[in-house]
Amino acid sequence: MTIRYPNGKVFQGKDLISSGRSTSPTLYGNRGMSLEEDLQESNQYYLIQNIAVVHKKPTPIQIVDVHYPKRSAAVIKEAYFKQASTTDFNGVYKGRYIDFEAKETKNKTSFPLQNFHAHQIQHMQYVVKQNGICFVILMFSSLNEIYLLPAEKLFYFWERKESGQRKSITKTEVEENGYLIPIGYQPRIDYIKVINEFF
Amino acid sequence: MTIRYPNGKVFQGKDLISSGRSTSPTLYGNRGMSLEEDLQESNQYYLIQNIAVVHKKPTPIQIVDVHYPKRSAAVIKEAYFKQASTTDFNGVYKGRYIDFEAKETKNKTSFPLQNFHAHQIQHMQYVVKQNGICFVILMFSSLNEIYLLPAEKLFYFWERKESGQRKSITKTEVEENGYLIPIGYQPRIDYIKVINEFF
Repeated sequence: MTIRYPNGKVFQGKDLISSGRSTSPTLYGNRGMSLEEDLQESNQYYLIQNIAVVHKKPTPIQIVDVHYPKRSAAVIKEAYFKQASTTDFNGVYKGRYIDFEAKETKNKTSFPLQNFHAHQIQHMQYVVKQNGICFVILMFSSLNEIYLLPAEKLFYFWERKESGQRKSITKTEVEENGYLIPIGYQPRIDYIKVINEFF
Repeated sequence: MTIRYPNGKVFQGKDLISSGRSTSPTLYGNRGMSLEEDLQESNQYYLIQNIAVVHKKPTPIQIVDVHYPKRSAAVIKEAYFKQASTTDFNGVYKGRYIDFEAKETKNKTSFPLQNFHAHQIQHMQYVVKQNGICFVILMFSSLNEIYLLPAEKLFYFWERKESGQRKSITKTEVEENGYLIPIGYQPRIDYIKVINEFF
């Protein structure tokens, strides 16, 4: 079942009842998983190995109506998706606060900035001011390349867009300002390795 | 409208459509607000004053059925409350990771440990291992006293319960192992002050 946000984007949350646990070992062989699933598996690996504690936040929902059937669980009968005011992932690595958003594009030559919302940029600015480790994970899915771009760099490109200039980050700019994240087996997306080296 | 979890506990999330923004200045005069609302206001104050960035996580929901009316927002038609596997609040203070759960009791002489779940204790243990600042905020609502109890202390009382001994923390134990949090106007619950002094 494909679930879509009001803006038409596909909802890929793990909140769906049929999605199961990302920790299931049978999933590891599954190629073509979503960026989000790969990140959740990586986080699970970090957790079990005592490397870091990072979780995806639940999808924010606005609840309007709830029913209470006798002798069974409360059922939400009317609710709506809300736009997140923060980023999707946060946690702790060696005492430091980590905060990031992950996005993917099928483009090969640039990364569209419309993937981010003003609220998220604002949140990342607050985090950077508090000296948190803040970044975005950008996946070029057609190229199978994943980059970690520090938030400060993203702010520059965001401001450029806000000033009426180009609405995306060129692939070359991502390469020059970001770090290629190794893709492996366990963890699938080893972003902590990049943090360890460059932050 | 009172919403209850399957276990009968009242749902006090801010996800309800009628709850409005906790940042509204008209709410500040409102006494008798919930612990959660007071904490959200405190967090909003910390955010605006660049003191810390702390948010409550959205309530986790398991979505089963979504409808897509033409020309209007997607409607969730069937969903259920899930039990949270982590704590409710996390964020960053001076680069450090902060993580906590807040609970209240009407008891005057002890704090029942049934307010916490094994999953949450496990999560707090992971956070402590990663050197995060982890604690619980315990409110004795009948006494109007709020304490910050470090996670390591909670683990001791949790283990005591697990070993078959008493199922609560006595008020005296909370006083001896925790820190009284000043209650004020802005912020209402100044837990960062306690962190600043004792962590």
